[in-house]
Amino acid sequence: MPRFSASVSALRSSAIRELMSLASRPDIISFAGGMPGNELFPVEAVEELLGGLDLKTKQAAFQYGPTPGLPSLLESLSGFLEQKGLPVQKNRLMITTGSQQGLSILAKAFVDPGDRVLTEYPCFIGAIAAFRSAGAEIRSIPVDNEGLDIAILQEEAARPDPAKFLYITPYFHNPAGILYSSERKQKLIETLQGRDIPLIEDDAYAGLWFHEEYRERLKPIKAIDPDGIDVCYMGSFSKILGPGLRLGWLLAPPAIYEKCELIKQSADACSPSFSQVIADAFIRSGRIGPYITSVRQEYRRRAACMTTALRNHLPEYVRWSEPRGGFYIWLTLPEGSDSTPILKLAIDGGAVFVTGNTFDPEGKRNNTMRLSYCNNTPEEIERGIPIIARAIRDVCG
Amino acid sequence: MPRFSASVSALRSSAIRELMSLASRPDIISFAGGMPGNELFPVEAVEELLGGLDLKTKQAAFQYGPTPGLPSLLESLSGFLEQKGLPVQKNRLMITTGSQQGLSILAKAFVDPGDRVLTEYPCFIGAIAAFRSAGAEIRSIPVDNEGLDIAILQEEAARPDPAKFLYITPYFHNPAGILYSSERKQKLIETLQGRDIPLIEDDAYAGLWFHEEYRERLKPIKAIDPDGIDVCYMGSFSKILGPGLRLGWLLAPPAIYEKCELIKQSADACSPSFSQVIADAFIRSGRIGPYITSVRQEYRRRAACMTTALRNHLPEYVRWSEPRGGFYIWLTLPEGSDSTPILKLAIDGGAVFVTGNTFDPEGKRNNTMRLSYCNNTPEEIERGIPIIARAIRDVCG
Repeated sequence: MPRFSASVSALRSSAIRELMSLASRPDIISFAGGMPGNELFPVEAVEELLGGLDLKTKQAAFQYGPTPGLPSLLESLSGFLEQKGLPVQKNRLMITTGSQQGLSILAKAFVDPGDRVLTEYPCFIGAIAAFRSAGAEIRSIPVDNEGLDIAILQEEAARPDPAKFLYITPYFHNPAGILYSSERKQKLIETLQGRDIPLIEDDAYAGLWFHEEYRERLKPIKAIDPDGIDVCYMGSFSKILGPGLRLGWLLAPPAIYEKCELIKQSADACSPSFSQVIADAFIRSGRIGPYITSVRQEYRRRAACMTTALRNHLPEYVRWSEPRGGFYIWLTLPEGSDSTPILKLAIDGGAVFVTGNTFDPEGKRNNTMRLSYCNNTPEEIERGIPIIARAIRDVCG
Repeated sequence: MPRFSASVSALRSSAIRELMSLASRPDIISFAGGMPGNELFPVEAVEELLGGLDLKTKQAAFQYGPTPGLPSLLESLSGFLEQKGLPVQKNRLMITTGSQQGLSILAKAFVDPGDRVLTEYPCFIGAIAAFRSAGAEIRSIPVDNEGLDIAILQEEAARPDPAKFLYITPYFHNPAGILYSSERKQKLIETLQGRDIPLIEDDAYAGLWFHEEYRERLKPIKAIDPDGIDVCYMGSFSKILGPGLRLGWLLAPPAIYEKCELIKQSADACSPSFSQVIADAFIRSGRIGPYITSVRQEYRRRAACMTTALRNHLPEYVRWSEPRGGFYIWLTLPEGSDSTPILKLAIDGGAVFVTGNTFDPEGKRNNTMRLSYCNNTPEEIERGIPIIARAIRDVCG
């Protein structure tokens, strides 16, 4: 056996891989994936944009670029982010190879093996993987429908050995689907101020809101720009252009950015120029706004369809909330339930979802399940949800 | 100041960044970069290939792919590598986000902070950055014109605490420009056999040979497939399609591959699908062979032009070898010389190169300099080399 490093020896084949293989089985309806529908990608628009580029830009798409990103994309993306009120000028912006790389870089920047970091429970699996890969001990703090449990955060913040950072996804949480309230964000800010715990704010689903009334809640903490907290704001083109481009971004205070740039240099030198040229053209052409509007409407339709199906078929003891945006609905079964046998029955019936323990950094709590509606037709949703509901009844009664 | 991890606190702004900024100054002739000439990229061919794809493939270019790579590219690349005699079936193949990511992943797989790894002296800066970022102590073994110093390797291999791996770039070495002899490779194999030191064989310049007579030397150690050594073979599309796609590959024994896949999953989930679709189409269309032939001929012309200019202008005390392929010529000045003041004079004169200490893991030895000819017209080479030669004379007499 090769003499692997200590942190890697501990890594085991993870849930993500199993998830991917389940989700790609053609014979079952998958509510498991977190990928946009293939039919929604702006294939024609990008083809047209690529054709219209000048030769110099086309050549640059094949060439190495600077580690932080192509200057033209950094400029156009800065404009895009400034429209959201983000303090781009006071910080430094870096293109990452998907926001997954942003997580990996930040973990490496802050975590020595054994260091404690704070996340939400449940938590995005890519973050669990990145933090664990850096050797972090993950302490996860439960969320309710308004956000993180502030009492627990206060305890953590008061410890003499504070955690290395807090990671949250306040906007259409993956997997919990929730949207933080403005009050909860304010309390979170007050708790962290002056505590030397950087905040990683992951806004991967930005733009995918379903109702005007909740737009006020979408203002990033980074845009509130609170004193006394180092906020590292992350975003992604995955949901507003295509994950296959592998482009995310990180907006961070200069001292943090500096370290992140060095880490990125050794990680992959630079993000794909070809993708960056496409994203830049997509922003500059003005197509990104109407595109986001169109997918937002489509995901709202799919969410509404799933909401109706769940109302019609789920037993009453299953708790869930109507999504306000994003890709996911999170089901909570009665205390003591186990979603793994439900998954087995559902697969037999021809539908698949992700069990809750996948999103538990401790891998235990499992009376929950994630359903995604982002990649399903109404017909699939109407056929698939009764299968899930039946499996729940068969197991939970 | 944020509480960075120990390994990151030690990272300093590196030579790579300075190099990039020097190389991009429009007012000076750059022999510093290791990037292909922009005018050589197969822009039209790729445009045509993209236009000819079916809708399903176009959509897949926007979508997440499996962590190890798109199945279609893994299949076509396997065929490409089997033509080089590589034992693809006995190993596992993974697409990486540039071969830089391959280095970063392997470093993470094997290195705990403080672990010793072996490289060549001089050594590719991307490897130095990746290994150092993982916390490695780098022990570099000098190369001569035929390859690594075997006596020193034998000493290292006999230590009771063997190094975690040996990293070499035997084919048109960056920066030394050398091509290992078959004898030296054989001795290296014999030294490593049964020693529990995996070999990382970096073949990024494969295909860019200038003379038929040296083709025999190009057979990868991985293709020789020696018993008793775990060989991790790395390659890249950067020089045979375009670095802006950020696509490399790693062919590794299954046990090593397994860990690498988990690391990649947490690093960036998957490499860019858009790039992978392009590379796959480029291989399957049969265009890759003629394209490699055409760039090989062009780089040979540029190398010949630089060779002539160096013969005409360099003082006799500068030692160098005519390149047999690849991108670089490595100049060795008399013992005790320092190439840094030469670089300053050269920049004043309007030309730039990379000082030798950049490629020294210890950052010291500096009586050497790297000139690259890959991205220059004959006219630039003829104007630039006299500037370099004059700077050498001004400093070394």
